Amino acid sequence: MIKLGIIGYGNLSRAAIDNLKNFPDIKLEAIFTRRPDSVKIDFPVFGMQEIASFKDKIDVMLLCGGSATDLPEQTPAAAKLFNIVDSFDNHAKILQHREAVDASLKQSKKLGVISVGWDPGLFSIARAYFNAFLPQGNDYTFWGKGVSQGHSDAIRRIEGVSRGVQYTIPKDDALNSVRSGKNPALSTRQKHLRECFVVAADGADKEKIRQNIVSMPNYFADYDVVVNFITEEEFERDHKKMPHGGFVIRSGESAANNNNVLELSIKLDSNPHFTSSIMLSYARAVYRMYNEGQTGCLTAYDIPPSKLYSGNIEDLIGKLL
Amino acid sequence: MIKLGIIGYGNLSRAAIDNLKNFPDIKLEAIFTRRPDSVKIDFPVFGMQEIASFKDKIDVMLLCGGSATDLPEQTPAAAKLFNIVDSFDNHAKILQHREAVDASLKQSKKLGVISVGWDPGLFSIARAYFNAFLPQGNDYTFWGKGVSQGHSDAIRRIEGVSRGVQYTIPKDDALNSVRSGKNPALSTRQKHLRECFVVAADGADKEKIRQNIVSMPNYFADYDVVVNFITEEEFERDHKKMPHGGFVIRSGESAANNNNVLELSIKLDSNPHFTSSIMLSYARAVYRMYNEGQTGCLTAYDIPPSKLYSGNIEDLIGKLL
Repeated sequence: MIKLGIIGYGNLSRAAIDNLKNFPDIKLEAIFTRRPDSVKIDFPVFGMQEIASFKDKIDVMLLCGGSATDLPEQTPAAAKLFNIVDSFDNHAKILQHREAVDASLKQSKKLGVISVGWDPGLFSIARAYFNAFLPQGNDYTFWGKGVSQGHSDAIRRIEGVSRGVQYTIPKDDALNSVRSGKNPALSTRQKHLRECFVVAADGADKEKIRQNIVSMPNYFADYDVVVNFITEEEFERDHKKMPHGGFVIRSGESAANNNNVLELSIKLDSNPHFTSSIMLSYARAVYRMYNEGQTGCLTAYDIPPSKLYSGNIEDLIGKLL
Repeated sequence: MIKLGIIGYGNLSRAAIDNLKNFPDIKLEAIFTRRPDSVKIDFPVFGMQEIASFKDKIDVMLLCGGSATDLPEQTPAAAKLFNIVDSFDNHAKILQHREAVDASLKQSKKLGVISVGWDPGLFSIARAYFNAFLPQGNDYTFWGKGVSQGHSDAIRRIEGVSRGVQYTIPKDDALNSVRSGKNPALSTRQKHLRECFVVAADGADKEKIRQNIVSMPNYFADYDVVVNFITEEEFERDHKKMPHGGFVIRSGESAANNNNVLELSIKLDSNPHFTSSIMLSYARAVYRMYNEGQTGCLTAYDIPPSKLYSGNIEDLIGKLL
């Protein structure tokens, strides 16, 4: 049994706990948060200051904090004591994060894997295989239909907005053009639509809210945006889930003018449930590879598929090759 | 530069040679066939009996023969002298083939990877990641639209058939039902349609040919079959390419009743070109891993994505993670 610890107690952490029933080889030992008193569950929850006393009681620590401020501090700190897995998703800063985590892991002689989820994660893996197998071609990534937390937060900060959620929606015309092998050059506006559902506060100026959304630089100004005003009841009924998904497509020639289109697509009812399920698979891989003597900071690119699968290699070959 | 040898000179071998322009780190040294005199190309072609003299001149040997009779003999034989890559595709016999090849590689202290192509190969990899990340669910594999060599051969053996080709076509209803997350139980007939294009010999009884095709056990009897009679000219114009493709779909719950659908799909103008491009990526991986000291027989499951990609790990992380 792999003894697991979890740092953080938000959506991702709760989803990881739900998923444990699908990972019979992993047993949760302890949860650590900054505010253990606020967590009301029938399970041992500890404050962050107690983490060092678990040094020999936990095989792999799962980091479930956010990439903006939590993980850049928490992952290198945890890596000084534990094998770790995180889902750091700030693509531009992954190399920097890897360096910091690797320094801690070199010191503790432990093993870790960063940035595993679905993007970065499963989508990154698809892009790597597709590029290796089809060296000439173009990559396209589309996200959605799904909730963007960043854009939803941006809407909620607008004056007069009581509740809000934003769905990123890939445009069918763009997807179909890519799938046809035409290798189109696509603008931001051509790739994705942004659809917002907003509950306005009593007496708020809806037209002004709409204008504030559609003109917001970086978040909305470069996109086609649809803003729907709905009631509190409609919001509660229709917009409490966190669905997501997306598409990775590579289109190109293998040689001799032969065109190929390779596509990975995923459709998820719950983004945190799938992300944390991927993290648990990598916790298994880290445990196995640490026991084989590996140390340092890995990414999904360094880990062979066999290490993720529940059974042994002969099972895997027999059932799935 | 990786010095490559190729055994065999058929469709797969010729496609591999076409693809070399996309693999600037690989250089073809020699081709070996049983009938070197029949190969008319501007490149060194040798008989199989000369292969041993190339022991120290070739880094990786690519085996491009057929899985039925060539590879079960040729791969273990070549593995006694060289690092090897093959695309052995008889799913039921892969474990047995792996054992034979591993015995040779243990003796020569070389490294090999077997069964890399797209199925087995890319599809197997997708099935493994999908199963690891979504432990509860159902797997579906569809093939096509594409030419099945086995079924085309079966048609051509029928009396009165001058030329023939068979396309395997996945049925949209089945695909859509799987994609919707309904986890349907699908019969052979519900999954694929078989469409045949036949040039009948002069004076042949077309209705009898049609009956012989649709009633053929194993190959056609369990399927919906469409038989089209065409002219020699139409055959030449429309049916000389070897397109293929397919779909791997896993549908299931992550936890807490959240449904997920994961799908890999590929569409290829030329089956042998894509298969051999994958083999060349694995030749690169075998070369790298052999130089790191690994020996024995691997499958795609044992090889991390980073070993396949042309650049180094920092390139890969920076560009594609």
